[in-house]
This record gives sequence, structure tokens and C-alpha cells, in this order.
Amino acid sequence: MSTQTTGTAAPAAWARRPDEALSDETLTRVDAWWRAANYLSVGQIYLLDNPLLREPLTTEHVKPRLLGHWGTTPGLNFLYAHLNRTIAERGQSTIYLTGPGHGGPGLVANAYLDGTYSETYSDITTDAEGIRRLFRQFSFPGGIPSHVAPETPGSIHEGGELGYVLSHAYGAAFDNPDLLVAAVVGDGEAETGPLATSWHSNKFVDPTRDGVVLPILHLNGYKIANPTLLARIGEDELLDLMRGYGHHPYLFSGGFDGEDHAAVHRRFAELLDTVLDEIADIKARAAAGDDSRPRWPMIVLRTPKGWTCPPVIDGKQVENSWRSHQVPLSSARDTEEHLRVLEGWLRSYRAEELFTADGALDPDVATLAPAGPLRMSDNPHTNGGLLLRDLRLPDFREFAVDVPRPAGSMSESTRVLGQWLTEVIRRNPDNFRIFGPDETASNRLQAVFEATDKQWNAELLGPEVDEHLARAGRVMEMLSEHQCQGWLEGYLLTGRHGMFNCYEAFIHIIDSMFNQHAKWLKVTRHIPWRRPVASLNYLLSSHVWRQDHNGFSHQDPGFIDHVVNKKAEIVRVYLPPDANTLLSTYDHCLRSRDYVNVVVAGKQPSPNFLTMDEAVAHCTRGLGIWEWAGSETTDDDPDVVLACAGDVPTLEALAAADILKRELPDLRVRFVNVVDLMRLQDAAEHPHGLSDRDFDTLFTTTKPVVFAYHGYPWLIHRLTYRRTGHANLHVRGYKEEGTTTTPFDMVMLNDLDRFHLVIDVIDRVPHLGSRAARLRQRMVDARIHAREYTRLHGEDVPEVRDWVWPDVGETGTEGSGPAYSGQTAGATATGGDNE
Amino acid sequence: MSTQTTGTAAPAAWARRPDEALSDETLTRVDAWWRAANYLSVGQIYLLDNPLLREPLTTEHVKPRLLGHWGTTPGLNFLYAHLNRTIAERGQSTIYLTGPGHGGPGLVANAYLDGTYSETYSDITTDAEGIRRLFRQFSFPGGIPSHVAPETPGSIHEGGELGYVLSHAYGAAFDNPDLLVAAVVGDGEAETGPLATSWHSNKFVDPTRDGVVLPILHLNGYKIANPTLLARIGEDELLDLMRGYGHHPYLFSGGFDGEDHAAVHRRFAELLDTVLDEIADIKARAAAGDDSRPRWPMIVLRTPKGWTCPPVIDGKQVENSWRSHQVPLSSARDTEEHLRVLEGWLRSYRAEELFTADGALDPDVATLAPAGPLRMSDNPHTNGGLLLRDLRLPDFREFAVDVPRPAGSMSESTRVLGQWLTEVIRRNPDNFRIFGPDETASNRLQAVFEATDKQWNAELLGPEVDEHLARAGRVMEMLSEHQCQGWLEGYLLTGRHGMFNCYEAFIHIIDSMFNQHAKWLKVTRHIPWRRPVASLNYLLSSHVWRQDHNGFSHQDPGFIDHVVNKKAEIVRVYLPPDANTLLSTYDHCLRSRDYVNVVVAGKQPSPNFLTMDEAVAHCTRGLGIWEWAGSETTDDDPDVVLACAGDVPTLEALAAADILKRELPDLRVRFVNVVDLMRLQDAAEHPHGLSDRDFDTLFTTTKPVVFAYHGYPWLIHRLTYRRTGHANLHVRGYKEEGTTTTPFDMVMLNDLDRFHLVIDVIDRVPHLGSRAARLRQRMVDARIHAREYTRLHGEDVPEVRDWVWPDVGETGTEGSGPAYSGQTAGATATGGDNE
Repeated sequence: MSTQTTGTAAPAAWARRPDEALSDETLTRVDAWWRAANYLSVGQIYLLDNPLLREPLTTEHVKPRLLGHWGTTPGLNFLYAHLNRTIAERGQSTIYLTGPGHGGPGLVANAYLDGTYSETYSDITTDAEGIRRLFRQFSFPGGIPSHVAPETPGSIHEGGELGYVLSHAYGAAFDNPDLLVAAVVGDGEAETGPLATSWHSNKFVDPTRDGVVLPILHLNGYKIANPTLLARIGEDELLDLMRGYGHHPYLFSGGFDGEDHAAVHRRFAELLDTVLDEIADIKARAAAGDDSRPRWPMIVLRTPKGWTCPPVIDGKQVENSWRSHQVPLSSARDTEEHLRVLEGWLRSYRAEELFTADGALDPDVATLAPAGPLRMSDNPHTNGGLLLRDLRLPDFREFAVDVPRPAGSMSESTRVLGQWLTEVIRRNPDNFRIFGPDETASNRLQAVFEATDKQWNAELLGPEVDEHLARAGRVMEMLSEHQCQGWLEGYLLTGRHGMFNCYEAFIHIIDSMFNQHAKWLKVTRHIPWRRPVASLNYLLSSHVWRQDHNGFSHQDPGFIDHVVNKKAEIVRVYLPPDANTLLSTYDHCLRSRDYVNVVVAGKQPSPNFLTMDEAVAHCTRGLGIWEWAGSETTDDDPDVVLACAGDVPTLEALAAADILKRELPDLRVRFVNVVDLMRLQDAAEHPHGLSDRDFDTLFTTTKPVVFAYHGYPWLIHRLTYRRTGHANLHVRGYKEEGTTTTPFDMVMLNDLDRFHLVIDVIDRVPHLGSRAARLRQRMVDARIHAREYTRLHGEDVPEVRDWVWPDVGETGTEGSGPAYSGQTAGATATGGDNE
Repeated sequence: MSTQTTGTAAPAAWARRPDEALSDETLTRVDAWWRAANYLSVGQIYLLDNPLLREPLTTEHVKPRLLGHWGTTPGLNFLYAHLNRTIAERGQSTIYLTGPGHGGPGLVANAYLDGTYSETYSDITTDAEGIRRLFRQFSFPGGIPSHVAPETPGSIHEGGELGYVLSHAYGAAFDNPDLLVAAVVGDGEAETGPLATSWHSNKFVDPTRDGVVLPILHLNGYKIANPTLLARIGEDELLDLMRGYGHHPYLFSGGFDGEDHAAVHRRFAELLDTVLDEIADIKARAAAGDDSRPRWPMIVLRTPKGWTCPPVIDGKQVENSWRSHQVPLSSARDTEEHLRVLEGWLRSYRAEELFTADGALDPDVATLAPAGPLRMSDNPHTNGGLLLRDLRLPDFREFAVDVPRPAGSMSESTRVLGQWLTEVIRRNPDNFRIFGPDETASNRLQAVFEATDKQWNAELLGPEVDEHLARAGRVMEMLSEHQCQGWLEGYLLTGRHGMFNCYEAFIHIIDSMFNQHAKWLKVTRHIPWRRPVASLNYLLSSHVWRQDHNGFSHQDPGFIDHVVNKKAEIVRVYLPPDANTLLSTYDHCLRSRDYVNVVVAGKQPSPNFLTMDEAVAHCTRGLGIWEWAGSETTDDDPDVVLACAGDVPTLEALAAADILKRELPDLRVRFVNVVDLMRLQDAAEHPHGLSDRDFDTLFTTTKPVVFAYHGYPWLIHRLTYRRTGHANLHVRGYKEEGTTTTPFDMVMLNDLDRFHLVIDVIDRVPHLGSRAARLRQRMVDARIHAREYTRLHGEDVPEVRDWVWPDVGETGTEGSGPAYSGQTAGATATGGDNE
């Protein structure tokens, strides 16, 4: 594996093919490469030994457990061989993404043939012994996975869950104007929702500033046990569909009815040249100023599933059938007949013509491949960390909001973040993008539109109608969370930076995509040649507590729960309580590598608590005591710990602390705020985890802890169940009780409100006496009153809505009243603006 | 709301329109209805009082917080009005599904106008006071949500997350041959992945046995802050796309450039008649035996977003702009000018012509709507519980596998279940379907194909190629988990039964859809007129522990974690350890109502532990002691509890119990197996929860508990953290360490293997002495040996692979050896068959 980052510096991008006839010799090399790749693929699935069939095949040479997938592999090998030819001829930097990631043996075989594999894994040498090891390791204990995987050179795309190859491909192409991304869409995969909408990505490509995706719909006709839909509609219908998706489709069918392979190669090679020339022409027109949307070409490649395997086994059709999906010959050790079928199949590729006596690829065949990093398996874009440049980040401190005293000003946190992001965009014009499903403005990041636009290559009606839409821009918006996630993954894995802003509830749409990305990161961290990539940063706003325009259907804080199931070394979760902590947190996230950072922050006006210096210190610790909010004396343990995580819970906890301070002045309350949720976990479980000693010091081991939490309450229990004082912990959070349209009514419905927190404290601290009992009754009454009030007036009760932290300065004098009540009232008068 | 189930008994389905001209009077009624619905929609968003504008509008009449969405509403109202006309004329049972569920006020308005709303909610009377209440309750504390919701009569479709209207529509149409489902696809929603693939549902409809879906793509041009993609491609391209999806598209554009509303109505009414006549013709041809796939018509309806709202407000374009998405006039109380804009807008509908002096809908206008359950808001299909018939279930006991002694036989659990399901299908030929993404056979339910086929209306190549594919069948397979889930939801919500079989890892694809369905169920359980529907049953096979063909990317047991975040009254999770317990569990699931049942069960050959009588008893308890597996004496507490949940963990725990029994005969081991995971939770938290007393009796309060669990270990902690003995609990489960291709290697990688469980026990039981210390060392060595062996041979070490529970009969004599080792070896020889 090359580690050069400059090797692709000046490819002759987007050249038309030199004007010379395609020679039979070249096509013979293509066929030889294809046969070699097919041979090595079958070998990986079946063989333990006798790698070049230099002796008759015996059962001892065959693996005891046959695992892997043949069906899609010969088609993938066919394309790899043909692309090798065009890359070598045109010098066009090209990467190869395979939706049918089941074709793992094929991608490994090709990486081996072009030399990358042995450069990457020195034990897999380019000789017979290397081939033996290559075969043995495949889908074998201690070996490599059966799918395309992080271990596979040239891959940015896990061969697990299907549906994302085109969104990954376009993500890779953005801001890589000289890169061609050949993206094979399996016709099974094509049935998935995410894939079905990802064709529309072509309306988001800027032909001058972005690279080109060449989609190749591989119509091999069958899935596990069924035909595929797109292979069973009329060709006119299929071409209509591709045209409807905005493409110029080319249909190629080859390999059926015993068609001669040489003929198939010539026909396909000519088609590929036509298509690549068409792409070159589009690029040239765009460079000349044509800003119309191109109809980019795409190829429908119809070949038999399992092409070149034995057509019929045990009397049943296998080639060109779903029966070749996995292991066409399901046992080669049970009967002599089956063993001979396998041997015949392997020998049909004529390995003796393809490999030298030592087992190296025939030197003439080897000339088919391009050199160095133009090899698709060695293209540095597929090991994005090689190309990654640090972001140039403006000093977030300069974007701080003024906090004259705790809760002494109000901000919409995400709007403040947007101002900083505006400058991030200005300083990083070609390697940072923001992705979101039509929500960037709704999530109040709209300041970024001072510096950039939303990229859009469908019809434009002019700036009066289409605010901030342009052919090129740093913000990518399509109403598909799958697309946002897929684009961003492709963008990150090829060495750039980005973030995904989304409504909290709907980020579950990409739960499974997050899974795959987290698994990719987890594995790559233990593969030395995979260089670290930028973290995948979520900003979840429009969160569960403020769905004023929407309701129960928009309320779900469970993405955090989902995320923390993944390896601790990969995931980080932050709940900054105000604007300055959000700035500090996000700066940290954009600097990090190889993580998934989940940041949840509200967009509604809410009080600021910490100055920037305090925010930096607090975020660095990840959690800590807010002394100004509590009422502890310095020497003893407090009577109770009031803890919180999340902006709304922090506000309610502070209001509760205020009530306690005023009404029960002798009660010693410790106030703890948590920004970095992983701090709660054991140090042995998570790198950010607090030691037991620190945890016990902070939360005590014996005193009640009332914890107001943003999400489902049991997550806090899960993170802390091993702590000494866990039995004293009482968590309030979201309880799946939803649908109300005023903020305080919502927190009351979930018992997370200030009054209930006060009740929780009183119920848990022993011996508080009659004053506390009376306060408890007042809290009960206050809740009833507040509930009644909203039902009458449609607004929250003013004493709650306009509550402010008492203005007690350092001198202890009372302030002049609710400094920001006007702002609060103004902000809520027209409701929130969730969509 | 009618509760008749027979009211729709004999609609004149699929009639062509009577051959008479469309009168101006009728169209005037359509327009009046539309104005009335628009008026009531605006009123809901804005007004607290003065509902019929009988006095000048003042700020006191206007809501203090303006919430809701206007943009899509007039288009939805337009369609409702026009469909009213055609239903009344044709007597065609029709339901109306709206993808743009944001149009909540519109659907409520129409249900109010046709009388359903007042029949359902008696306090919302058909007079001025009723209208006042209707307005006030909308998106108001204590009122109704702003979206289409379970509270909305006529809805089966939550207006939350977008993307599922077509899959819901087709689900509703299956097995309802006389039902028309008008399904409005928002052009925002159309960008989502699930929606983009759901157009292909038309290839799964049987024109004779299923109903008809009429998709109406509502091209209103804008999302929250952007144009929509499909409104910004050429019309030719859009029509190509719809043809490519297999439809016959009709494009209608109306309401632009000041087009007279009467003209728009006439044009659209004529188009709708053309389309409905075309559907009638297709139905007639199909009934006459034409089995070609029809190109069902669909409509592209292009109207201005926010149609009929003030075109310009504060100098900015609002109508026909994204600015009308939500509340076009964002404040009506701040200035007199805004108040007058609102009043002018409201008065533009001329409510005085539409409502009587009492506030009832003008009787002539009211004649537009059909009567009784033909009203779309009252159609009983939208309250599926009304139509639900119990399944006729064969006695699952008759499908029991023989278990001469614990672990005395082997089965593939799901294959056994398939035999029972075959009979379920035979007995319920029109109200039970199985959904799955191309995995029904892979999950080993293939016995069902003795009784039915996979329904498929794309091209068929004949039974030799296309096994078990037919125009009609009870199994629905498309490679889209979104489609499977959406179809099933639509099928269940209209009063039928079904199940979804899926690979465990990829069920996360529909996490967010599960969320919305669970929320729907949670709300409907508290709406008396919503009758219970059949539970949504998952069968998750090809689970985390046996991904032999695949690997890390296919390993995720976290769906259980996701599910248990939802309301306890809705969710059930079962982990049957063998075939008979799976049968008993699934029988229970198919009888249940209003739940989401998650059943995880393996498909690989594995030992049977319980006879059917024992299985029924065990499943009824949900968890219990397996005395035969433990080594307790009767009187005292055991020394240790060895607990397990899930088939693979149960096998490993039993093997560990066997080792302990043999090697440490004095150790008193209690063996507990858990089928119903919710039993672990507190009785206060979940209806299935064990009381503390029962839990403590079972697990003890003082003895170590080593728990082998199928999924992420912390879920067990989360469920049990309040139990007295929780600190003694030690859980082994999946740790996100994956990729190995032999079963035992996989469990070793996660420390869930028998040897490690023995080590766990030894490490936790005090004072075991030197024999235990020596055993511990042997266990360490055994793991090293087993790991080495798989790396050498590619198979699990025989003593593990062929391990059997010792054949100790009631007389205590040793048996004759591994009765099923041959079967085990045979089953693993060719690997598993995950795809």
C-alpha cells in the first residue's frame, strides 16, 4: 500500500481515449485478468491448499466449512479488469465502490493481482505460497471477513448492509474534481430505500468542482432466493426509470447463451470507452462555462449471476440462478463427483496460463493494470486518512456569548454555533461540508449562509425564490437522512471533514448506518495502514423537549442509547447546557479523529450559564460542580446532589436549586452538571470514564442523587450501575409521555420539572421537618396550577416562563429583576419553530 | 364514528362513472367544501374564539402560540373534496392516506365537515360552539396534536416521520379487493429512501385479490426551507420516473397565475374520473382473466404550496413558497396590520355562505359527502380493530419436536416453526401474511411454501426458474426492510395479522419505523374508539451468534435495547431457547393484540431441551429453574445461580453446568433460563415484571449470579438494577467483538463460552479450594486449545462441537454417548447458511 499522498498529483483527468483501435492483445489481457481474478475468488472460497492445482485435487485441499459468496463476484471482477484497462490508458484516478460487498473474494483477488495486497500484507507474497495463504485466510478463523471490509485495500465501503454505495460514491466525489468513482449497484441492493433515492444525488453534483460518479447497475438477476425486481421489468421501463433519475443510461447484456467471452469483452470495452468519453465531454463543457445540469451516463450491466461457475450441479441450474448466490457447490468433500466438479470449475480458468512457475501473475497480464496509486486498490482516496488535512479552525472563544453572571443572558445555542461554523466554512473552502435533511436553517445554523450556499444542481428559479441555493455550496440538503449520512460517510472516508445536523427524533432513521460506520472505525483503528479519518459529528437539535410545532411522533432521545452500545473507543456523547459549552464542545469534535461524536443541543432561546473560560474548563473536565448554583458549605458532604445533563434538564434543575436555596436555606445542595456523558461510566469501560474515586468524591457514596437527564432515564443507571452509591441515584428523564405544546407542560408531563425535582429531593433527604413538608405541598399545588394555566391560556405560567436565576452578585446584593424575561416572552409568543 | 362492520358490505366497487355530465352545481359544492375545509384549517391554527367571524377579529381571538402547518393543507383539502364527490357517485369504498401528515388541521377539518368528528367526539358539536372547541383544541395543551395522529378519525398513518405512505397504502390494499386507497405522497417525503423504493410496490399487487392504490404525488414545490427535487426536474423527466416505476402517470397543474378555482375544479374532476375509470377497466380486465401486470394510473398534482393564503406578507412571497410551510403569518397579535391580514385571509373563504346561522355546514354543501362508512373519515378499514377476525390457529402442540430427554434431540427451531406457520397459512387464506426481505427461506421457514407462494407481479419465468413465485401468495419478499415493515403496518392497522422475519442485525434499518408504530399503539390504547389491532410480530433469526457466512457487519443484537425504550405496555421480548419454546411463544404472539412482539430464535441445528408440556409451562412462567440442569440440593440456597437467555447462551450455560457438575460435584448450582425478558424487570415497570419477592426467591439476594445473555450485557443490568441482589449479578453477552466464522470461536471472542462461564463461577463463589483452582487453569487451557484448533482446522474443536448433555436418566445411569454428534457435524460441514 502506497503511503504517498502526492502520487496522484497530476493525473491526466477526463481525457478522451487516445484515438487508436482497441487491440485484441489488450482484450486478451483483460480476459486473462478476469480469469485470474475469478480463479483466485473460487480458490478463496474453496481451497486450503494446492493453490495452483499443480497436483490433482483431493478432499484435504478443500476447506471443511465453505463460506462466502460467489454470485456477484465474476461481474465485479469483470468490471475491475475493464477499468484497469481504461485507467492505464487514460491516467484517470479512479476508485471502485461495490454495493454488492458480498463479493469480498473478488476485491481481494484484484488487489492481490495488482500487487497492492502483497504491499499491504507482506505475508501474502506474490508466489504459490502467498496464494495458498490468501486462500486459507479467507473467511477462516483468525483470517479475513468474507465481505469487502476495512481489511480490503481499496475499499471505503463495508460489504454488510446494502443500500449505500451511491451515497458513499457521491460523498467521495464531492470536492474531488479529478476523481472518477465507479460505483457498482447490485440489483438486490437497488431494491432498498436508501439506494432508490440515492440516484437523485446527481442533482447535487457540481460538474466543475466535484468528481464524477459512474453508476453501474449490475443486473445479475437474482438475490438470495428470488429474482430481482429491476431484472424483471421491461428494458424500456428500466431505461425510463434511469432517465427519470436524471441519467443517460446505457444497457449492456453479455455472457448469455454461450456468448464468446472475447466478444463480450470487446463490446463492453467499446461501451466503456463511449461512456468515459461522454463524461470527458461533459467535464469539458462544464469547464467551458456550461452550467446546465448534465445527464451523466450510467451503465446497466446484465450478466449471468455466478457467471462461469458450473451451469448445472446435481441436475439443478446454478449459473444464472439464485442458487449461485453463495457457495454454488455446497460441498466438495462429500462425494468424488462433487470434488471433480470443483476441480473442473477451477481448471476452467486455466491458471497454468496465468501464473508463472513461481506463482506470480504472468508479466504480460500484469501490464493491464495501471501503476502505483492509480491502481484502484491503492488509490489514496480509499485510505482517506492519507489525504486528510487538519481543519483551519477559528478561535471559538471569539464567538463566545457574554455571560455577565450565571443565566445572565439568553442565547439560541445552535445559532451561536452557526456563527462559528460560518468562519469554519470560510477558512476551509474545499474540505468541510455540512449535511442535513432540509433543517440547517430550522436548526438555526443559518448564519452559515453568509459564507456559503446550499449546493443544488436541479432547476434554479433565481435568488428571490431560491434563497441560498447555488450550483456550488458547502451545505448539502436533501430530505433523506440516509443520503445525508451516506454522503457524509463517503466524504469523511476519503479524507475530509463534516457534520450532520438533524432533528433528534429522526436520526434513528440512520441507526443501522451508524452501526456500520462505527464498526468500520472500530476495525480500522486496529489496522495500522488505515490512517485515522475525521470523526463523524452529529448535531442533534430540535430535540425531544421542544417539539412545540410537532408532538409525540417527533420525540425520541434514544439515539444516545443506540450509540453507546458501540465500542467505547469509538463513541462520544456530549450534552452542552448552553451556547459557550456548545462552542467549546464542537471545536473539540471537529479536531478529533476516528470517533462518532453525538452532540445534542437545543435551538430555543435559553439562558447562558458559563463564561467562555468557565465553559472551556467545564467541558475539559466533562462534568463538575457548579458552586454558584448549589448551597453546600465547604467542609462537609452535602445533604443531596442535584445533577443534570442536557439544556432543558439543566434549566429545570437550576430552578429547583433556586427554590431549595430560598425555601430550605439549611439544606446543603450540591449542583453537578454533566457535559460529557461518558464521564459517568467506569474508567475501565470507557476512556473518558471517571475513576471510582473521582466519581465518589463528586456524587458521594451515601447521599441521595437526584439526576435530571435529557433522555431515557435508565441510560444513566446503565452507565453508573457499578458505582458505589448507585443505589442512591434517582433519575428523571423522558418517559415516552408526549404531545404537549408548551415547554413547561412537556417537562411536567415527564416529571422532570423544577417542582417535581424539589419534591424528589424532599422525599429523599431524611429528617427535613415540617417546613419541607409544607414546601412539598406547595410544589404539588404549583404543578396543578401550572397545568391548569396552560390549558386555559395555551402558554406556560408566567412565573415559570419568566423565571430567572436570582441576581446575587459577588457582593450578595439582589439584582433588579428578570433581565431576560422580555426575551423569553418574545421568543415564545410565536411558538417554537420546529417543522 | 360508526362501529358497524357490515356497513360496507356491498359497495358497487370499481364501477365506471355513470355516464352523465359533471354539473356546475356539483363542482360548486366541491369548491364550497374546499373553502369550508380551508377555513376550518386556518381557524384551527389561529383562533381561540370568534369561530365564524361573526364579530370583527381582535387579538383576544387569536392564539398566543401559533403552531401547525398550513403549506400542505389546502392541497389535501382539495383532494378530500374531490374524492368525496367520486365516492358518493360511485359508491367506492375509499380510504385516504396522507404522507404529508403535517396537514393535520386539514384532515380534522374534513372529518368535522362530514360529521365523523362529532360522532367520535361528542363535545365537538356541529355548531358554532363546536367549531370554537375544534379550533381551540388544535395543538393546544390538553388538546390534539398538530399532525395527523391516532386521534384523527380516518387515519392509519401518523403524521410524524416521512416516507411510508405508499408502503402503508399497499399494506392496506392487500387482501382488500374492493378497497381504493388514495395515497398522497408529499414531494418532500418523495425524497426519502423508503418512499423512493415504495413505488415498486405496484409489482406486488394482485389485481384480482388485492385492492387498488392510487398514488397522488403532491408537487407543491417546497419543503421547510428548500424547493423539492421532483418539482425541479423537467416534467418529461418526472414522467419518465413514474413510468420507470411502472405507473401510468397523469400530470395535473392547477391554481397558478390566478387560475379561476372553478376551472381548476372542473379540470381536476374530469381527470379524476378518467383515472378512476381506468382503474375500473383494469379491474374488469383482471376479473376477466388478464394476468398481465397493469400499469396502474397515478396522478402528479402540482398546486401552489399554501394555496389560498395571503400571497405576500411583509413584502415577501408566502403563497407558492416555502414560507407557507408552517404558519404563513407568524404573528397576528403583534400589529394591527397583521391582525387584518389574518382576518382578510379568513374572510376570503366566505364562511357566511358555508355555515348556517347555528354554525352547521350548509345542508346543500353537506350532500357532497358520501354517507355512513363510505365517508373516508369513517371507513372501518381505518379502525382496523373493527374488522379484525381472530386467526384460526392450529394446535402448536401437534408440531412439537420429540425431546426424549433434555438435549436428547436436535432441531433448527425456525424450521419447526415454519411447519406450524404452514398450517396457519392454510387456515387463514385471506388475513395473514409473512413479510421478509428475501430471507424467508434463509431463515428456514421454507415449509410455508408447501402451502403458499411468494406474491410477485413482475415478470415470471416459470416454476423451474422461479420457485414459489406466483401472482398471489401469502409471503411478501422485497429486499427492503422498510417495505416489509411498512406493508405489515398497513396490513395490521387495517385489521389483519402478520409477521416480519428478518436478520437480527438489519432490523435496525426500521428502528425509526418501529418507534412510530409503537407510539401509535401507545396512543391508541388510550383512545376508546380505536379497537385493538393484531400485534406486530418480529422473528429475528440469523442472529448475532451465527453469522458464519458473514461477519462483524452482520452482528448487532441491539434491536432489543431499542425496543425496550418504548412504553412497557406495548413491547414484549422473547428469547425461546429451543424449538418447542419457540412454537409456544409464537402461538402466544399471534393471539395477542396491540403489542410489538420481538422473538429472537436461531435457525442452526441446536439441541432441544424441553418437551412440549415443559415448554408451555416454562413459557407461561416466562422464566424458571431447570432443575435437571442444576445441582442444587432441595433445602438450601444454591452457591451460585447460572442464568441464561437466548439459544446460544443457553447451550453454553448448559455445557458450563455440565462441567461444574462433573468437576465440582459439591457446588450447588441453580440453573435459570429466561424466555420472556420483561420478567426481569420490576413489576412496577412492566406488566410482565416479576415481583421483588419472586425475583429474590429465584435469583437469591446474596449469591453470585452469572448470566449468559444473547445481546449487549448491560441490558440485563438495566432491567434488574433495582433488584436487591443486583450487585451480585455478572453478565456475559455480546461485546462488539466480531468476525469469526466458527460458532465456538465466536462465543469465545465475546467471553460467553462455557469455559469462561465456569471461570466466572469459580471467580465469584468464595472458598472453593484447590480443586476449583485447578479446574480454572484447565478452563484457561481449554480456551487456548480451542482457539488454536480453529485457526489450524477452520472448525471448532470436536469436544465442543460434539458436546452433548450427559445422558443421565431418571435412574441415574450414564447414557451411551453423543446421540446427536453426527447431526451436529453434518450440519456444520458445509457451514451455516446466512446470506
